[in-house]
Amino acid sequence: MVLWKMKFKIWEKEEYTLIHFDLEEVIEPKKLKDLEPPKVNLKKGVVLSGRGPIWLYCYLTHHYHPARFIATYDPRLGGAVVVETHDPNIYVGQVIEMKI
Amino acid sequence: MVLWKMKFKIWEKEEYTLIHFDLEEVIEPKKLKDLEPPKVNLKKGVVLSGRGPIWLYCYLTHHYHPARFIATYDPRLGGAVVVETHDPNIYVGQVIEMKI
Repeated sequence: MVLWKMKFKIWEKEEYTLIHFDLEEVIEPKKLKDLEPPKVNLKKGVVLSGRGPIWLYCYLTHHYHPARFIATYDPRLGGAVVVETHDPNIYVGQVIEMKI
Repeated sequence: MVLWKMKFKIWEKEEYTLIHFDLEEVIEPKKLKDLEPPKVNLKKGVVLSGRGPIWLYCYLTHHYHPARFIATYDPRLGGAVVVETHDPNIYVGQVIEMKI
């Protein structure tokens, strides 16, 4: 029996928590319901990173929607793009520069 | 002057609205704030489709979060994966088969 594996790593930053995932094999949609994304401090932002399908990112975006803001890392941009925010000082479309 | 263009097409289905976008050039994050996604009947589901960056999908997922459910089309699966739902008969990870 091969267990499906998805590893989350988190890094606490001052303004946000970086949540990076590694898929050890191709993820199937039916695995979404068993996913247990890490608990983080929702008073901070959340930055999502990792190689995975769009629907996994959309699921995680919804999962973390109470967070201060949510951004997804885009390696082509060298930063994470804010996709939703509850913080008046952070705007949608803002790119938070970072190295991953 | 070249105007940045993003075209949305919508198809009304019985259970959901299919929202397909076409980008005529690479989208930059700063364009997100000017985006005007089409208004749809939120009592139905929303299926998102199109070639674009993950952060665009995550933005649209949040934009349509009041919809009955949201799914993103994955051409590799030949269907759309439900990423969030308010409908007890539709579950996260469900694949809605469709041809686009």
